Amino acid sequence: MTVVNKDLIAAGQVAAHNAQRAANLEADYAALGGMLERRGIDIEKITALAQTFAVALPSWGVGTGGTRFARFPGKGEPRNVFEKIDDCGVIHQLTRATPTVSLHFPWDKTDDPAALREHAAAYGLGFDAVNSNTFQDQVGQEQTYKYGSLTNISAAVREQAVAHNIECIELGRALGSKALTVWVGDGANFPGQSNLRGALERYLDSMRNIYSALPDDWNVLIEHKLFEPAFYATTIADWGTSFACAQELGPKAKCLVDLGHHAPNTNIEMIVARLAQFGKLGGFHFNDSKYGDDDLDSGSINPFQLFLVFNELADAASREGAGFQTANMLDQSHNVTDPIESLMNSAVEVQRAFVQAALVDRAALKQHQEGNDVLQAAQALKHAFRTDVSAILAMARVRSGGAADPVACYRASGYRVQAAEQRPAKAGASSSGIV
Amino acid sequence: MTVVNKDLIAAGQVAAHNAQRAANLEADYAALGGMLERRGIDIEKITALAQTFAVALPSWGVGTGGTRFARFPGKGEPRNVFEKIDDCGVIHQLTRATPTVSLHFPWDKTDDPAALREHAAAYGLGFDAVNSNTFQDQVGQEQTYKYGSLTNISAAVREQAVAHNIECIELGRALGSKALTVWVGDGANFPGQSNLRGALERYLDSMRNIYSALPDDWNVLIEHKLFEPAFYATTIADWGTSFACAQELGPKAKCLVDLGHHAPNTNIEMIVARLAQFGKLGGFHFNDSKYGDDDLDSGSINPFQLFLVFNELADAASREGAGFQTANMLDQSHNVTDPIESLMNSAVEVQRAFVQAALVDRAALKQHQEGNDVLQAAQALKHAFRTDVSAILAMARVRSGGAADPVACYRASGYRVQAAEQRPAKAGASSSGIV
Amino acid sequence: MTVVNKDLIAAGQVAAHNAQRAANLEADYAALGGMLERRGIDIEKITALAQTFAVALPSWGVGTGGTRFARFPGKGEPRNVFEKIDDCGVIHQLTRATPTVSLHFPWDKTDDPAALREHAAAYGLGFDAVNSNTFQDQVGQEQTYKYGSLTNISAAVREQAVAHNIECIELGRALGSKALTVWVGDGANFPGQSNLRGALERYLDSMRNIYSALPDDWNVLIEHKLFEPAFYATTIADWGTSFACAQELGPKAKCLVDLGHHAPNTNIEMIVARLAQFGKLGGFHFNDSKYGDDDLDSGSINPFQLFLVFNELADAASREGAGFQTANMLDQSHNVTDPIESLMNSAVEVQRAFVQAALVDRAALKQHQEGNDVLQAAQALKHAFRTDVSAILAMARVRSGGAADPVACYRASGYRVQAAEQRPAKAGASSSGIV
Amino acid sequence: MTVVNKDLIAAGQVAAHNAQRAANLEADYAALGGMLERRGIDIEKITALAQTFAVALPSWGVGTGGTRFARFPGKGEPRNVFEKIDDCGVIHQLTRATPTVSLHFPWDKTDDPAALREHAAAYGLGFDAVNSNTFQDQVGQEQTYKYGSLTNISAAVREQAVAHNIECIELGRALGSKALTVWVGDGANFPGQSNLRGALERYLDSMRNIYSALPDDWNVLIEHKLFEPAFYATTIADWGTSFACAQELGPKAKCLVDLGHHAPNTNIEMIVARLAQFGKLGGFHFNDSKYGDDDLDSGSINPFQLFLVFNELADAASREGAGFQTANMLDQSHNVTDPIESLMNSAVEVQRAFVQAALVDRAALKQHQEGNDVLQAAQALKHAFRTDVSAILAMARVRSGGAADPVACYRASGYRVQAAEQRPAKAGASSSGIV
Repeated sequence: MTVVNKDLIAAGQVAAHNAQRAANLEADYAALGGMLERRGIDIEKITALAQTFAVALPSWGVGTGGTRFARFPGKGEPRNVFEKIDDCGVIHQLTRATPTVSLHFPWDKTDDPAALREHAAAYGLGFDAVNSNTFQDQVGQEQTYKYGSLTNISAAVREQAVAHNIECIELGRALGSKALTVWVGDGANFPGQSNLRGALERYLDSMRNIYSALPDDWNVLIEHKLFEPAFYATTIADWGTSFACAQELGPKAKCLVDLGHHAPNTNIEMIVARLAQFGKLGGFHFNDSKYGDDDLDSGSINPFQLFLVFNELADAASREGAGFQTANMLDQSHNVTDPIESLMNSAVEVQRAFVQAALVDRAALKQHQEGNDVLQAAQALKHAFRTDVSAILAMARVRSGGAADPVACYRASGYRVQAAEQRPAKAGASSSGIV
Repeated sequence: MTVVNKDLIAAGQVAAHNAQRAANLEADYAALGGMLERRGIDIEKITALAQTFAVALPSWGVGTGGTRFARFPGKGEPRNVFEKIDDCGVIHQLTRATPTVSLHFPWDKTDDPAALREHAAAYGLGFDAVNSNTFQDQVGQEQTYKYGSLTNISAAVREQAVAHNIECIELGRALGSKALTVWVGDGANFPGQSNLRGALERYLDSMRNIYSALPDDWNVLIEHKLFEPAFYATTIADWGTSFACAQELGPKAKCLVDLGHHAPNTNIEMIVARLAQFGKLGGFHFNDSKYGDDDLDSGSINPFQLFLVFNELADAASREGAGFQTANMLDQSHNVTDPIESLMNSAVEVQRAFVQAALVDRAALKQHQEGNDVLQAAQALKHAFRTDVSAILAMARVRSGGAADPVACYRASGYRVQAAEQRPAKAGASSSGIV
Repeated sequence: MTVVNKDLIAAGQVAAHNAQRAANLEADYAALGGMLERRGIDIEKITALAQTFAVALPSWGVGTGGTRFARFPGKGEPRNVFEKIDDCGVIHQLTRATPTVSLHFPWDKTDDPAALREHAAAYGLGFDAVNSNTFQDQVGQEQTYKYGSLTNISAAVREQAVAHNIECIELGRALGSKALTVWVGDGANFPGQSNLRGALERYLDSMRNIYSALPDDWNVLIEHKLFEPAFYATTIADWGTSFACAQELGPKAKCLVDLGHHAPNTNIEMIVARLAQFGKLGGFHFNDSKYGDDDLDSGSINPFQLFLVFNELADAASREGAGFQTANMLDQSHNVTDPIESLMNSAVEVQRAFVQAALVDRAALKQHQEGNDVLQAAQALKHAFRTDVSAILAMARVRSGGAADPVACYRASGYRVQAAEQRPAKAGASSSGIV
Repeated sequence: MTVVNKDLIAAGQVAAHNAQRAANLEADYAALGGMLERRGIDIEKITALAQTFAVALPSWGVGTGGTRFARFPGKGEPRNVFEKIDDCGVIHQLTRATPTVSLHFPWDKTDDPAALREHAAAYGLGFDAVNSNTFQDQVGQEQTYKYGSLTNISAAVREQAVAHNIECIELGRALGSKALTVWVGDGANFPGQSNLRGALERYLDSMRNIYSALPDDWNVLIEHKLFEPAFYATTIADWGTSFACAQELGPKAKCLVDLGHHAPNTNIEMIVARLAQFGKLGGFHFNDSKYGDDDLDSGSINPFQLFLVFNELADAASREGAGFQTANMLDQSHNVTDPIESLMNSAVEVQRAFVQAALVDRAALKQHQEGNDVLQAAQALKHAFRTDVSAILAMARVRSGGAADPVACYRASGYRVQAAEQRPAKAGASSSGIV
């Protein structure tokens, strides 16, 4: 693990916080350990596994989000990418589960990538996939994306969008990223507005240009979304389209699954299984939703679904071996909570699903499946999901140098109060990438 | 009909436009008249009925809309309520179908309601229901709506929201409105965030205060919406809640149906029938949608559904008699079209559904229904819907002084080009109520 | 508690089963007790509460279910209502959570209600709400329900349907039931097939006749369902219609919520809150679903949603006091599992949600809500949901005379093998009420 | 066109029917012709095109359908495949739009394919794609499909299912078919029931065996469906999976789109465009739906969507040229109508969409799209859709020897009354393939 040189919250504060909770945590951990032991599971192995968990933070997630109706900013919001990294540093310091940050350009563009990289490294942070933005017009931009970007009927617009993506790759290289995530909102609001096939042909053409600029050890991740901002037809609307495009582009192109980007009732864990089977599962944007792309906190609405996704990842890992890995990040909109708190809590919820999936007795599950013992097969998953692994997660954090209760520790630290003083609100915050 | 004193597009231009199209229109009208006559329908009666149609314009609809991701403004957007009224004037001049405007406060707040009323009257425009806004914070506002308005846990916030609604009634009275539409986005993003029942109790308490400030001849229209901005639970989420609240409040409280505010697969025309049956159907926000509250142009996605809604209105009118009327307005977000064109076109599409519903042979329909002749009952509706009444709509417009082809006439007039010159873009346009 | 005179599975077998598991259960229970104590919760109070839990069994649930495509019967299916009661007896013996059975007429019609009542009482079973069936034609029936029952255009059909419901009340009285559940599939497959308002008027007229036949201490429960068997419009499609009808009928009419009968994305727990608030929450059909009325095992797809429903019930109980109670039953289709196993397991899952909801720290929750501490309010629910109360449930069963692990005990007993021998398959099993 | 040797309805009756309607039809046709001429369209070309339209009939569609709750049989239902062909013959005689029938085995299995072929040919009928059935157990079948067919964990079950499909190919060859449609309901009702990836691996393995038995000039059509009979996960649930499998199998494997087999809100016409683009669009099952796989009459719920599907087919045809063709059939469940009437009417509705799509001014549409004239692009489609082409459809039928008004002519013929006499109801009709 990268050495952390700089603590945003005093190490002594964290230590005191943990000391206060040590007795209860030890007792809970021992109780859970006994329960697991009676099921034939060694809690220490699970805790060690929990310590390996990592999920990337979205730079835009540390600001307060909003809807098309309103945004109600919180206090002490970061005003630039360096302050965003500070907030990510706090999250990682206390959770020890978020060692990388995913940047969004041009929101997070910097003239001095080396300084940014150093700033992040001081907190033990590296950079995950970088994200391009061709769904908004930037001040001074020559061409407008009003009618699409990579799919635009105009070659000039497409070239601008391609160039921006290539610039993102360059920025990412300077920061140590290894992947570019491409999400375009391109599509149509009306039947007839665009030729559905023509639009995808232009998309593929644009993507081929971006693909050819990828370094050898990079991936490009295609992110699909059913709707919004396009409300009749979105060019990359579903996993089928994403998959077909990734195939057209080549081995470095993979599919990214955002949990909130599907039609109602969709079985998302099956999409995960399909993409893994066909070698195109690239990564995730974790969040939760009840209606659409709600971008709620991971695990807040349907925690069992999150577990089932990780159950598929565990199945894939058991098939594919060490080579199997995906680019995982949180992608949420924090409209009514302190973003730092929501991100800490969400990282823990995703980690919880990861750990619960590790508790599944796969040999027994397989046996039930092969015997068509449907009830017990289902119970094999429920049994793992029902297990309250909170003590494991807390112990893993403490052992890795984090906080037993990250939110409580963060609140006690006064970090937000300080930030509110040091970062007076600026007007038009949405231009800094809070959507 | 109110005398129109002022033409935004030169009367001569409209006349020339119509003259150019007269021969074709007459021929199409005669052809259609013959077809209808062979079905036993007098086209003249239908055309006369079409001329009575009216739907209100939303003042915020004349600006370009957007999503939480971006807004791509058009040229010549109105910068204040007077310019919005100008644009509405053009729409009404050419369609003769939109004699009223629905204002939104504080976006459209004016210090001189009399001047605004006069300004509108000059175009033959009056004012429909006024809309309050407690889903955004205004600059200088004392209390924040971040955690709700009429349902807020804080009495001070609720009082502020109630006072704003009462102020809207006052403004509406000065303008000649007869109804207040109340939409609140209040709700929760997380299970547990608010006590679901407590929130509705507070809503009812707030609404009782607003209700008691209503003039005797006013209605308050409760608008429900499934989700957005709240993404887990919306306090007024469905027609059941809206209906229960309208009952609690009293006879002046009615329910407003926005076509895009329902769960997937919902049978909206049945909700219309239910509210009409129980005496609580207050009005409509017309638009179309494929996924959620997409606010697309009326009839652009599912025109048969729009027809079925008007079929229920025709059924209700035939039962309730002359007393049956609802407050109807367009409520759309024009993200990729010229808002004036979309509103003209949408007014015509709603009028089309109204006219098609009038073509239903209700005696035959009833007979088929009573004989369980399911196929022919269904065909009775389809037969009316299939009828291309374009010539009737055009003739109705021409006879009422509008344009045979409003969009073509508008384009030829150069109105937008002129507006673009006279109304340079201003920064932060979203504060003027374009969502 | 009713004295059980008759054991379907030898008491000694259950005792041996429990003895084998006693040490582990005690250890797990002690471990959990310690964890709860550190949260300030006395496990004994929770266990005592768990012992009070009861949910009714659906008589039709003990047969294998199917779809319109196929039914794959299992072995030893009950061939009549007495055998169904036997199976229900096993479920109650081992779970101690299902002391009542809900019958469906005419499927379960008997000439000797007293004998049936005695047969059930011998297992400690009583009878919950009775269900009428006007969605199928029975052999020899005079009128057909092809075009509806309580809403049929024909008075003769409606009278037949009303008479059947009144007969159900009579049968229910003889059996000790206190409620009639009315579900009608009536509706339309085509726009135009029926007059939407006329159909509901006829429904209300029919229901008034049924209502007037209700004994004073009975309720009638109105069950709504979005679709199927009607695929365009269902007369009682949503809670709003159910609620409006219950109001029209009077205080003995209440609404029944089946978890699978809603539009996609519907917030069901909010419907529960609304009906409780307006005094019309009558009861539940518990099951789970991913797509429509899938009738899957309770808690198998979205266990957090089931918890949130019980969270609302706990909230209502805390407001309404001892008088608050609802008629709760399982309503599932067991297509690929042994129905007895699924029902045992499902009863436990519903009980689990009941117990978890009791763990919510309502004082803390209220404080978080009142302080707009959204994150901690959400965590207050998640904390309770995350708690693995399996040991409490097992201990409650054991203390009440049931089995530590009902499914394992049942399997060991050989009950199904015996049933397979004693109950040879009969042709056309679907006529016995397996849908 | 195949010579029709045998008329089920006396030719004189049809002629008299048409003669009665000739004057009105001529007048309507002339009126429409004039309107089209003023838009630059030659009605004769459109009528000639309409005469080329063909859609296959499903043999199982001529019986009354039902739901899992009930089936209400009609009178005179066909009792075997020969009687089914008779009914199909009537439909084709009157509509001239349904020259082929799609059979379902073993429901339609015959020992004498040559006789069946001859029987059909006498009505001018040939055979379209044949359908296998591994979603039901047949009497005497060795292995059960309770836990799946092509995906079953047991090799013996999979072999049985493969063998059945190969037998279907053999039967199809004898009948002159050129395609096999494979729909399996295989999937899971519970998370954990089956290994999602393992199930698809077994599916592909089974399909490879079927594929290798395909004649050179045959296609195999993969039909996906979101849910039902499986309610948690369906192995072939979406077009992405169907597409990936078709790719794995080879060029003779294509995807079949059933309009009712998608998640809510899905843009089906875009799926059509995608499959066409990637060379895997094999055919359609036409029907309509509001909630799920409702199997309602084509065009009865959302006629604009049906038009948009044909708009994509027209676009594909304009790109791919004469080689582009798909296997199109109706697949509906007629629960409350006379199946013959519904099928006649539905064939006409699909033909209507085909004709309306031909009215789209593609040059103008392209120009609007290329100029980002969104409003006019949308109107180009709506203009075509709005056109009432009923007179064209009637004229095409009359000119091809069919009836001006097929339903009226059929009713007048007394065919159903006669059938009711000749075909007394048989018990257990669902075994003949009415689902």
